[in-house]
Amino acid sequence: MSDYTIGVDLGGTNLRAAAVARDGTMLAKIAGRAQLTQGRDTVIQDIVGAIRRLMEDMRARNLIGVGIGVPGFILIREGKIIGSNNLPEFEDFPIQAEIERLLGEKVILENDANAAALGEKWIGAGRDVDDLVLMTLGTGIGGGIISGGKVLHGYLGMAGEIGHITVAADGNPCGCGNRGCLEKHASATAIAAMGRLLHLGDGITSEEIYNLAVAGNERARMIFTAVGEYLGIALAGLVNIFNFPLYLLSGGPLPAWDFFAPSMFAEVARRSYTYREARTRIEKATLGNEAGLYGAAYLPFQQAGA
Amino acid sequence: MSDYTIGVDLGGTNLRAAAVARDGTMLAKIAGRAQLTQGRDTVIQDIVGAIRRLMEDMRARNLIGVGIGVPGFILIREGKIIGSNNLPEFEDFPIQAEIERLLGEKVILENDANAAALGEKWIGAGRDVDDLVLMTLGTGIGGGIISGGKVLHGYLGMAGEIGHITVAADGNPCGCGNRGCLEKHASATAIAAMGRLLHLGDGITSEEIYNLAVAGNERARMIFTAVGEYLGIALAGLVNIFNFPLYLLSGGPLPAWDFFAPSMFAEVARRSYTYREARTRIEKATLGNEAGLYGAAYLPFQQAGA
Repeated sequence: MSDYTIGVDLGGTNLRAAAVARDGTMLAKIAGRAQLTQGRDTVIQDIVGAIRRLMEDMRARNLIGVGIGVPGFILIREGKIIGSNNLPEFEDFPIQAEIERLLGEKVILENDANAAALGEKWIGAGRDVDDLVLMTLGTGIGGGIISGGKVLHGYLGMAGEIGHITVAADGNPCGCGNRGCLEKHASATAIAAMGRLLHLGDGITSEEIYNLAVAGNERARMIFTAVGEYLGIALAGLVNIFNFPLYLLSGGPLPAWDFFAPSMFAEVARRSYTYREARTRIEKATLGNEAGLYGAAYLPFQQAGA
Repeated sequence: MSDYTIGVDLGGTNLRAAAVARDGTMLAKIAGRAQLTQGRDTVIQDIVGAIRRLMEDMRARNLIGVGIGVPGFILIREGKIIGSNNLPEFEDFPIQAEIERLLGEKVILENDANAAALGEKWIGAGRDVDDLVLMTLGTGIGGGIISGGKVLHGYLGMAGEIGHITVAADGNPCGCGNRGCLEKHASATAIAAMGRLLHLGDGITSEEIYNLAVAGNERARMIFTAVGEYLGIALAGLVNIFNFPLYLLSGGPLPAWDFFAPSMFAEVARRSYTYREARTRIEKATLGNEAGLYGAAYLPFQQAGA
């Protein structure tokens, strides 16, 4: 009987779950909205319901386990989210234990960006390496670090918070209390904010700024040049710290690669001796927004020593 | 017959070697100058000579292996130094193979700051943890990262270059090509440079600036406050990236702890949510300049699975 796992990716907008085979084949997938406005219990019921439907569909196969990726700071041993902009209702709530109770199955909790990094390592752009850093550019900037093939957790599970590296000591204030966090200067939200500052439009989005850049708008292009510089500062630091062979970027602003990559690479080269001396790849991730789903599904295989 | 190893610490100024027992007891030690002006062959002869003398002294015991810590960027698999301000003559030279040839024994090469971090983990301030970062404040700033009890090498052995993290995007130019490297704002060299800028004396040293601070000199104290802020920016980033339980500082400016630590802790607290939420120790290392010697000696024990 062939083995499978279930991966769940709970985001601020979407809730997705998939049954995945040991070779990475997605056997079935359920995608819906994360009904966060309906309250915590509804979201948990939706998660458990999706897992049950997949288990029912896969009843001819052998379930190895369930992995769940969630946004925010998590305590890995306690299975708790302790801080999350997207899921404030889940803060300090034992989400892992509650899902296990309702489901009658063990589940593994993981930060969503860590899960995405693991997904890329398993069957994405990081297949051929054991060590990589993934940076996810979105509303904020998340990060996942894979060291020796496994998620680097730190002692509580809070490692990889790359979005809150300081790239401008007196830069934009961040909700985390810091100034000049990377995510305040290079996320999709930061791109939109720069667009407003440069009078490109009051409610302009990062996607619209990208379209302007494509059309030749100089201000829009300048924004991506600045984004590349800030990404470069953070990446240079990561290259100096880790000397890993691969650093991946993913997320909404990725189509703008050609606009931000030149200044990003220039900055990394200028700021990192290691980058200049040691062949280091900085590339686009390849699994898009399915990376977290694959990574969550890989967690039980990895724990089982697959 | 009781086991021992030999650790060697080659610095820009000193060359030290020690025979160390499995429990960390230093059985014998040789300390001398690193005769770098006499050329590469002399230095290598000195290293091999010191190791031979220790082997002779310890002939009643069983040698497990030899570990050597050297300053600079090293390629761990090739046993080569590829970049070193202190040892330019050793760049691209197969130092490990040459010592092995002369000695007739296998040796393990390691970066000096990595070795110091490992020493602190083995029998120093990091004894009770498996994960730590050590920052060595000296002429430059070195770094060593211990993850899961072992040195984090990266894929070539160049990881841990914490001194070249950017802490001020447009800060002081560094020999590495970057601007605003941590070591250009918080090393002993940087402290002395700030002293000159603030007219504390033309040839003033960091130690003299420390003495002025003790005597109540406001400018001297301001320098250490600034040093603390820069260390805080770098440490906050490391805490956000690693979520390790322990970060250690060592080196010449450590006596000035009371002058730089307040602004350092304030900066880390402000810039790291993880630091505020997760108990994180930032402390003085305890082995002083013997850390690298102990760490080098620990390498063969670790490799042998001790």
